[in-house]
Amino acid sequence: MKLAYGEIVRNLMVASIRLHPRTSMSAPIELFRRVSTGVYVVGVAYRGRMNAFTAAWITQVSFDPLLVALSVNPKNLSYSLLTKSGVFVLNMLKQDQLELARHFGTQSGADLEKLAGHRCRPGTLGAPILENAAAYLECRVMKSITAGDHEIVVGMPVGGEVIDDTAELMMYAQTGDLDGSSKLYPRTFEQRT
Amino acid sequence: MKLAYGEIVRNLMVASIRLHPRTSMSAPIELFRRVSTGVYVVGVAYRGRMNAFTAAWITQVSFDPLLVALSVNPKNLSYSLLTKSGVFVLNMLKQDQLELARHFGTQSGADLEKLAGHRCRPGTLGAPILENAAAYLECRVMKSITAGDHEIVVGMPVGGEVIDDTAELMMYAQTGDLDGSSKLYPRTFEQRT
Repeated sequence: MKLAYGEIVRNLMVASIRLHPRTSMSAPIELFRRVSTGVYVVGVAYRGRMNAFTAAWITQVSFDPLLVALSVNPKNLSYSLLTKSGVFVLNMLKQDQLELARHFGTQSGADLEKLAGHRCRPGTLGAPILENAAAYLECRVMKSITAGDHEIVVGMPVGGEVIDDTAELMMYAQTGDLDGSSKLYPRTFEQRT
Repeated sequence: MKLAYGEIVRNLMVASIRLHPRTSMSAPIELFRRVSTGVYVVGVAYRGRMNAFTAAWITQVSFDPLLVALSVNPKNLSYSLLTKSGVFVLNMLKQDQLELARHFGTQSGADLEKLAGHRCRPGTLGAPILENAAAYLECRVMKSITAGDHEIVVGMPVGGEVIDDTAELMMYAQTGDLDGSSKLYPRTFEQRT
């Protein structure tokens, strides 16, 4: 009985695809703008060197143990500090911190200069915590895997703190083209610009 | 000159950590609720079998090529369809589709039954597209890596469509404890409940 029912649904679906023989049509950027994430300043440190960079490609990935994944551009100046130390801090930005996102999103700042003038302190793992973030998570790198032009780093949080529990969090979608990423999406899925 | 300046900043940071010798104090759930993501119904199909499940742990991970990552529980009924077929569809939910999120978030539905009564059609890769989602992305599995109790699946989108371009997207934070995940977070980072 159940199988027969499944059969009917399947046949309806096959009939439906024949009525809708279209292929996908939206531009990649329109679709990817809808893959929602927050915005973070990722703090890194290694042997007295500290740096931080803005990132959005972050998600929880496991419950037991608790794990997060962060996709990082290996060309990022901070990448070597992250991999050599094996630690990072996810500083979660508030909605009104677009200037912070912009500042730490630029590649120009060498070690420490980017952090100068910003209230921060090293966390228990040594990587910098922004004291005016909404919250932060301190993480140890567990493993990583190359994914296209980025590296997915899997981190185990060892601690963290909600600094401002009423803060609304910044969403990547609200940053518009702050990071200039509109130039990085191909116009279609088949063809790169 | 620059080094000397860096030295000053570093010393201020070291002084700061001595003034704030606290370790992290917030509960994991409070912090992880702030790792923002959207909410998706992931459609899968293999040899005429179709299923779908609600997921939130999804992010873009690469520009060239465009790649997304999806963290899946291997115990999920749909997991074997996903890995055997090597394809999946990310159906992006709208803010008012909590009932859809709840329906596809339950583990009880065997093949097809969960999809019965929902307007859907197979995409170009065969996996089901929900016709009332905000948008969808059809993806091919490129690789995967185990991360704790989940598997991070890296997918290459081959197409997709914005179905409703004015829709507000559902955020995981707005689902409250719809998925019952509050029981899955340990009370502290050191100790599991």
